[in-house]
This record gives sequence, structure tokens and C-alpha cells, in this order.
Amino acid sequence: MTDATLTGHSLIAGTTLPGTAGTVSGFDPRDDSALAPEYSLLAEDQVEAATRAAHEAFPAYRALDPQRRGAFLDRIADSIEAVREDLVARAMAETGLTEARLNGETTRTTNQLRLFADVVRRGDHHGVRVDPAQPERTPLPRPDIRQRQVPLGPVVVFGASNFPLAFSTAGGDTASALAAGCPVIVKAHNAHPGTAEIVGRAIAQAAEECEIHPGVFSLVYGPGASIGQALAADPRVKAVGFTGSRRAGTSLMATAAARPVPIPVYAEMSSINPVFVLPGALKGDGAAQALAEGFVGSLTGSSGQLCTAPGLVFVPSGDAGDRFAAAITEQLDDVAGQTMLTRGIAEAWQTGADALSDQEGVDELARGTDGPTCNAPAPLVLSTDTEAFKDNGELQAEVFGSASLVVRYTGVEDLVDSIRALEGQLTATLHLADSDLAAAQRLLPELEDTVGRILANGWPTGVEVGHAMVHGGPFPATSDSRTTSVGTLAIERFLRPVAYQDLPEGLLPAPVAVDNPWNLNRRIDGETTLSGKDAE
Amino acid sequence: MTDATLTGHSLIAGTTLPGTAGTVSGFDPRDDSALAPEYSLLAEDQVEAATRAAHEAFPAYRALDPQRRGAFLDRIADSIEAVREDLVARAMAETGLTEARLNGETTRTTNQLRLFADVVRRGDHHGVRVDPAQPERTPLPRPDIRQRQVPLGPVVVFGASNFPLAFSTAGGDTASALAAGCPVIVKAHNAHPGTAEIVGRAIAQAAEECEIHPGVFSLVYGPGASIGQALAADPRVKAVGFTGSRRAGTSLMATAAARPVPIPVYAEMSSINPVFVLPGALKGDGAAQALAEGFVGSLTGSSGQLCTAPGLVFVPSGDAGDRFAAAITEQLDDVAGQTMLTRGIAEAWQTGADALSDQEGVDELARGTDGPTCNAPAPLVLSTDTEAFKDNGELQAEVFGSASLVVRYTGVEDLVDSIRALEGQLTATLHLADSDLAAAQRLLPELEDTVGRILANGWPTGVEVGHAMVHGGPFPATSDSRTTSVGTLAIERFLRPVAYQDLPEGLLPAPVAVDNPWNLNRRIDGETTLSGKDAE
Repeated sequence: MTDATLTGHSLIAGTTLPGTAGTVSGFDPRDDSALAPEYSLLAEDQVEAATRAAHEAFPAYRALDPQRRGAFLDRIADSIEAVREDLVARAMAETGLTEARLNGETTRTTNQLRLFADVVRRGDHHGVRVDPAQPERTPLPRPDIRQRQVPLGPVVVFGASNFPLAFSTAGGDTASALAAGCPVIVKAHNAHPGTAEIVGRAIAQAAEECEIHPGVFSLVYGPGASIGQALAADPRVKAVGFTGSRRAGTSLMATAAARPVPIPVYAEMSSINPVFVLPGALKGDGAAQALAEGFVGSLTGSSGQLCTAPGLVFVPSGDAGDRFAAAITEQLDDVAGQTMLTRGIAEAWQTGADALSDQEGVDELARGTDGPTCNAPAPLVLSTDTEAFKDNGELQAEVFGSASLVVRYTGVEDLVDSIRALEGQLTATLHLADSDLAAAQRLLPELEDTVGRILANGWPTGVEVGHAMVHGGPFPATSDSRTTSVGTLAIERFLRPVAYQDLPEGLLPAPVAVDNPWNLNRRIDGETTLSGKDAE
Repeated sequence: MTDATLTGHSLIAGTTLPGTAGTVSGFDPRDDSALAPEYSLLAEDQVEAATRAAHEAFPAYRALDPQRRGAFLDRIADSIEAVREDLVARAMAETGLTEARLNGETTRTTNQLRLFADVVRRGDHHGVRVDPAQPERTPLPRPDIRQRQVPLGPVVVFGASNFPLAFSTAGGDTASALAAGCPVIVKAHNAHPGTAEIVGRAIAQAAEECEIHPGVFSLVYGPGASIGQALAADPRVKAVGFTGSRRAGTSLMATAAARPVPIPVYAEMSSINPVFVLPGALKGDGAAQALAEGFVGSLTGSSGQLCTAPGLVFVPSGDAGDRFAAAITEQLDDVAGQTMLTRGIAEAWQTGADALSDQEGVDELARGTDGPTCNAPAPLVLSTDTEAFKDNGELQAEVFGSASLVVRYTGVEDLVDSIRALEGQLTATLHLADSDLAAAQRLLPELEDTVGRILANGWPTGVEVGHAMVHGGPFPATSDSRTTSVGTLAIERFLRPVAYQDLPEGLLPAPVAVDNPWNLNRRIDGETTLSGKDAE
């Protein structure tokens, strides 16, 4: 696919729909040049076409058997692989991210789709529970009760600026919603409209090839917030997945809560991912140096534009901590800024970095060099202490990009107090040695109450897509700490339980049917029984 | 325990706290007489004592091993059984419900606690997932990632008027929250303050005997809505469980959503539980008569004051439906009203019944007789058709008590349209014969999108407490369709996932420890493996 084949329009249930609310272009952030074609934007009253189609597609789509739904997800992955070269090229132009990063992100995206295809075929997400009838029970017989999870209905997914593939058109929310049996409407991010279209067309093609109702997927372009609010308010929409700013996320939460029928919003918003360097981690030759290297790499990769970038590092006071701080200064000195995703994001980074630098008790610790393009500011590390940190919530403001704050602390109880002052986070990282185990044990429950993922002796960037991953956490990291946006548990965010009591056998849906035709693992009277893949 | 031993005060972490915001009494609804003692009400600034105690109790309580937490739940059940006689007597006086019903409800309450004790000991709610490290993976090694569910934190539970035991102080929400590892603060319902105190003291006694931090449980009395709002707004509170009116429930939802850190509200509010009588169910001698008998029993039991009372019955037009309607008229004729829970509830019933009767196209079909007390209005069944029903949302207003609306329909597509016009419901009931199977299959997906439980050839009242039950459903039946307030799945509403990446073995919490010391079932690389009770 080349630029010439991009239509520049929304894609509603397999059909191109020109918008009537103006146009937008992608820009190459390396030189702020506009990229062809222009994309027409839907007016608020045009998005109903997408929600109506999704609503129409829902009954047939949710009824698909596991093989067909799984095949659809696999086919989407195939379709994306088939356009990989054009896709990566376009994404590079629209985001300034490197080819290696975007190739990796493409692989992650298709692996994610295939992983959810496996989840669909395995079927544990049906959550089948059976309490068989007890006709002889006294004083009253017990009825036969069967439970399964059903999909919520059409889901709106907002593409994220910083992951044009893995958190956008065919990203995690789309994959998990489709896996759950929910049609998806993607609101394209205006920073990468062409990337969105290439992926959107791949999905639509997969639906056509798999003979699935085309309303199962639509891709809409619109003028910023208004169309997103219209989608979140539409009565046919049953859930929202979002990755982006705290302001936009909380605004969607408010819209969803104010509907006549409120719906869940899964917004991933803001996280500064504290790192706790415990004293033992700095002992030994080269330890401080190696840690500083890891930190600078994690902070500056992808220009720091990762939800899990380490924006806060607690470093012990004293000589060892001083050596670590000095190593950061030294290492960052010759690191050049990389091009950020958009001019707006680069400007917001500068504003945020300036605001943080201006806070009382904050000093500059390290600075890299400006990068080769107009939107590649020098990475920055500031420094303060826990006293200043605990008293000033402004020091927790996320500066999206390569900026971080080193906070010097004096002991484990000082860290406990600092954790209690923290807002909810996606991740927390401990750097520790055996000698730090008691301190880490003291911190662990505090961290469990504050974050979604706890790491040791690594860096939070680079989120594994698997069964055990949690990419979530207490507000404002996300709007709903009970779920994750990465990993297979994410399918559960788009499901709800239904119980069937004494239904005639001919009426029971397959997942709860008496002869278990889909060979699902089930809980029978509360006891897990393996009947599926796991029993082999 | 006798009235003389009731203190008439809130119970904060095992200690009596007199309130400064006036007093309230329970009333015997059979004669509207006030019951001693008066209960002192906490002012808004006094409830912090309870939330602070819960917050303090949380770290130790969440860390209890399964045996100790399970033993605590069992001990609460024992403590309640030990006061059963006084408890039932006091509850009868405060609610007008029968001894048989309250004895049954006590048994249900203690069974529920013991069931959750078993859930705690089995441990599936930890939701353990392990993706083992793959050090040899390319291009990057895979880290070791482990996931488990952790408790949200202190939970506020609002006692319900209509289940003074099973949905109140030691009811379903309290049992599931304590099972999950969350301290509980119960806001007593002012209609049964003495019943609440007897149960509350039993819980506090169990905590003391089990040497659990007393802040794990508090019982507060307060002046209606304001104290409830103060509790829902308290930053130490992490979730709310509520059963009651739509107005109060949506008000709590708004408060929780407007907090600096929003929290989940599980409100069960409003449901009229449609029943669909399909033509085959009326065929055969005596079928209409038997169905009418079942309906009248379900409608008038407990004076219709059940969340799942059948407030809406779809009956086919034509002769068979006419015979069924006539049988309802005949059967209800000599059914006397039973005493309702409070004078206010009886008055609200009358207002609601009058409003429904006055709607265009609604006629009276059947009426019982007034009961022997001042608060025992005659049960009422009204009648209309689908045309009137679909056009007028007022016909879906819940009239809490023994009032129901028969809606005559003309065919299965007419029913489909009616279902689509329905608000979310806790239950839907099908009465059908083999000849109705195709029609029922047509209705089933529509019902799945609309309700939490689907029954066949029974009545929705009488909710089983088991592993497969769903007592929930789309708004306004509840605030959150992704969960249930009855049955063991309810434990999940008070949990959230946390992932651990590459933690040293000495730092891993027991549920995710390498040697699986609690013998939990786990998902390893997505595959369910039995290691616990289920593997025996």
C-alpha cells in the first residue's frame, strides 16, 4: 500500500465515509512537514453510522464459535503482516520512531492478536461455573444453575499517540474486545492517520475474508475531543478503552458516568513509575555505573514516550547515592534527544520540564544534548529530596518524554512515607541486593496498594504481553484498577456474567451446555475441572 | 441478648461510640410502635473513626493466611448462630417479617459466611498466573512474571431494608469483602437498628476471639443520606456495596465518581424481573391455574419486598392468556396483604401503585384484601398491552411490594421489541413447553443482553447462594453489570490484579511463591494447573 492508495476517509463497516467536519493531516515530526493525503473528519452526527453498524453486527459476532472467532483474530494478524513494509514506513514518517522500534511494535501487535486467538480457542474466559441440581435437597430442592461470561457489546477504542500500532487501531484493547465478542469502533489518533488507515483496512479485509459482519469494525477520524465524547455517549456503545492524557481520560470518565445508562471506561492515563534504589544495589565495583546506564537507556528510549518510563528515582543519601547521581550526570551528558511524536508533544514536554525545574527544592542533575531535528529536546534529569517531594504534589506531575526526577531519601521509613504520598502508578521498580530484603519486604505491601506491577532489578519499560502481565493500577494511572490493558486478563474487562437456572437442555448456550461441546474447563460446585486443552 | 443489652450506639472497631447527631428508633410496622432503645446517630465528622480504624486494620488483615481468614468467617457464623433466637425475635419486631422467613434468612446468612470461608481456603480467588522466565528467548530473554489478586482496601456496606440479615450487617457484601481481605464498615439501615447491633456485636466478638485487628469491622448509625455520602467520599474507603433505591444508589455513584480518586460502587437498585409466559406453557389441563398459583405466591411472599419479585408478566393474547389472567384474578382475590417493612415503604408502595394504575391503557386485573395491620395493603395486579408498554417508560417503574403488571403480547417479535424497550434487570423468567423452544431461542440472546439471570419454568424469588449464581445485571438493576452481589463470584468485586516481575524468591508473597505453599490452582503460561483441593 502506498500513499496513493490511502483514501483519507473514515472506514465504516467496510465502506469509506467522507467526513464533513474539515480535514487533518499527519506530520513528519522530523521537519514538521505535512503528509498526504489529508484526512476528512466526521461530524458528530456522522459517527452514528459506526455505532449502528457495530450494534447490528453484535448478535452474529458474539455467537461465533471459538474456531471462527480465533481464525478472525489470526487473519487480522496475517493481514497486518502482509502490509508490514508500507505500514512501518508510514508509521516512521508519522511518528519519528525508528524502523527497529516500529518493526518490533508490529510484531508485538500481531503476536498479541494471535495470543488472543489462542485465548479464544482455549475458552477459559467463558468462566463457566455449574452448580448441578439437587432435587433431593431439603427443605427445598436446588435448581440447576450455570454461569458464563457474555460480551458487553460494542466497544470504542481510542488510538494512542505513542504506540501507533500496539495501543492503537489493532492494539491491545481492540484485540481483547474482539476476542471477548465485542465489535470495535476505533477513534484514530490524528497524529498517525495514515498508519491507522493501513491497519484499519487490514482488519476490514480480514472480516470480509472471514465472512464476518462488516460492522464488527469501524475506524473513524474526527476533530479531537467532541467526536470522542459523542462516541462515549452513544447508547449503543457499552465500554470505552482509552490511552492518553489524564485530562482526556477523566473527561471520558465523566461522560460515561453521566449517561442515562453509565458504562465502564478503561482509561490509562498518567504514571511516573517510581524506581527505588536500595543501598545494597549500589554496592560493588561498577554497580552505580551499570545502574545509571540502565536508567538512562530506559528513560531515553523512544524519547521517553512510554507509559512506563521511569520518571521518578529514589536514591539513598550519602556517598553511594552521590556516586550513582554523578554517574547519571556523566552518562546523560552525551545522549542526544530523539525526535518526539509531534510538535505539540515536544512543546508540552518543554512546558512540563520547565514547570518541574521551577519547583522549590528542585535542581538540575543531568542534561543530554538537543537532537538533530526540530522536535528532539535534550533529555533531562532533575533532583530533589523526600522532604520537598512529600510536601508538593506538583513534583508528581507526569512530564511525557525523557524527563525524570531523582529523589534522595534517608531510610526505609522515609521511603514508606514517600510511597504513601504517591498517586497510583502503573509500575514500581526495586533495585536491591540480598542485604536489602528486609527493607523490600517492608515496602512491598505499600507498593501493592499503589501500583499494578512490581519489578526487581530491571526497568519498567518493555511490557511483556503474556498471561500474567498487569498493565494497570490505581487512579490516576488508570480509571479502573481492577483490570489490565496488556496481557490476556484484559479480555475480562469486556465481559459480564449471566446465570441460567433450570433451562431446558435445548436452550442452553454451548459454553454451559450439559455435554460441554467446547470442552471448556469449568468450576463444578466450586471445584475446577479440566476438560479442555489443559486436560490433554 | 435482650433489648436491655442493646447499647443503642455505633460500634467502632469493637468500641461503643455514642453519636452526636440525634437519635432514631426502630418501629414495629405491625402497629407503628417505637422500639427501645433509641439509637444515637453519628455526625459526619464522627465516621472518620471507623474509616481510620479500617485503614489501620487493613495491612494485617489482608496478610492473614487462608486458614485464619477462613476461621474468622466461620466464627462470625458461629457467633450469629449463638444469638439466633434473640436475633430473629428482634428482626420480627423491627420488620414485620415472619419467624419462618427470618429463621431461613439467618441460615442463609451463616451458610453464606461458611461458603466464603471455603472459598478463602480453596484460594481460586487469588487468580494466580505464572509466566515463567525464558532466559534463552531471543531477541530478548523473557522475565519471570507472576500475577495475583489483592484486596482493594476498606469497603463500606449499606444495610438493606428488605433483608435485615442476608443483605445487611453480615450479609453478602460483608462476607465477600471480608473474604477478599477488605475491612468492612457497615452503615446500619435505620429500619432495623437493633437487628444490626446484634449482628454487629457478633462480628466484633468473632474478631476479638480470632485475635484480628478490631478495625476490621465497624457498624455506624447515621442520619440517612449525609453520613452515607461522607463514607463514600472518605479517601480511606476503596469500594462501596449498596442495596436499595435507585435514587440513593445513583447518588452514591455520583459521589464515588466525583472523588479525587474515584472508587467502584456496587449498587443493586431497581428491577421488575419480567416473566415471559410462552403459549405452550398454558396448554393442558390446569396449566393456567398452576402458573397463576406460582405467580401469586412469588409476588406476595415477603409482601413482594424482594429484589427479584415478578413485577412484569408477559402473557399471550387470546383465549389461553385470558384464562391465565382470569386465574390470577381468582387466586389473588382472597390473598391478604402482609405487613410491609415500614410505614414509609407501605406509603411508597401505595403512591407507586396509584401512579401505575393511573397510566394510560392500564387496567386493574386483580386485587387481594387488606391485611390485618396498618401497613399491609392489598396486593395488586394491573394489566396492559405491549403497545402501551413499549411507548411509556413509566410502566417500568418499580413498585416495591406486591404489585405487578400483566402485559398482553401477540407473538415472539412483539416480545423481542418489548425486551429491547426494557431497562436492565436482575432476572428474566421464561415459562415454556417443548413447542416454545424456537421462540425461546429467539429471545435468549436478547435476554442475555438485558438481565443477569435467566430462569425457565420457575419463579425468580428465592436466590440460591452458590458458585454459579448471578445476582446482578445491567443498569439500573445494578450500577455495574460485571459482577454479582450473591454467590462466590462476588469476592472478585473487591480484588484487583498485581504482577510481580523477576522478584527474588524471598520477596514473593505466598500466593505467587515458587513452591506454591498454599497449594493454589494456577494458570501457568495460560494453562490451568490443579495443585490445590481440586487436584485431590
